[in-house]
Amino acid sequence: MKPSSGNLFAEIAAARDGEQFTDLLAGPSLRLERIVSLGQATPAGEWLDQNEAEWVILLRGAAKLTFEGEPSARELQPGDYVTIPARCRHRVDWTSPDGPTIWLALHYAA
Amino acid sequence: MKPSSGNLFAEIAAARDGEQFTDLLAGPSLRLERIVSLGQATPAGEWLDQNEAEWVILLRGAAKLTFEGEPSARELQPGDYVTIPARCRHRVDWTSPDGPTIWLALHYAA
Repeated sequence: MKPSSGNLFAEIAAARDGEQFTDLLAGPSLRLERIVSLGQATPAGEWLDQNEAEWVILLRGAAKLTFEGEPSARELQPGDYVTIPARCRHRVDWTSPDGPTIWLALHYAA
Repeated sequence: MKPSSGNLFAEIAAARDGEQFTDLLAGPSLRLERIVSLGQATPAGEWLDQNEAEWVILLRGAAKLTFEGEPSARELQPGDYVTIPARCRHRVDWTSPDGPTIWLALHYAA
């Protein structure tokens, strides 16, 4: 097998009407995904609730995340990462409307 | 379990006499690691040869990687990532001496 390559900041096609999801790696116990947001948020009153754990880092842009039981949102700047245990309810309250917010998300069986 | 967090660009302590390695996540079939280089390279005549596959992205700085059998080095800029199959011999020819080169490396059982 030969080494394959790409650039995480290339081919950005975020739009206000939908986030962009790109799988970078997929295996039996992990999936690595790039997500590009442009102003999207989790719908009001809803939570994200995942069967697998997730390690996610924000690399460009800005966002606010709320975790169930926490009094206020966490503001994420470039370089900020969060490990989200499986079944830990959370929501994306806000992503910057001014330009793409680029996330790298590792979904894995904990 | 509560969500844990950090910033990938904080607490950079690279030095010319040694790279900085920080485990961000470790599980039965994966390990996520931050590596900070400052001018280091694989010793002349040596190859890196790993039992596990690796997905690695350069997020700050610059580097050159050579893969066995390829005629020339690949130059990596921020955002560039490479998937390195297990047992694929490679070397880091050069990392920038001008400031920290920050890598995020995911080691996993393919």
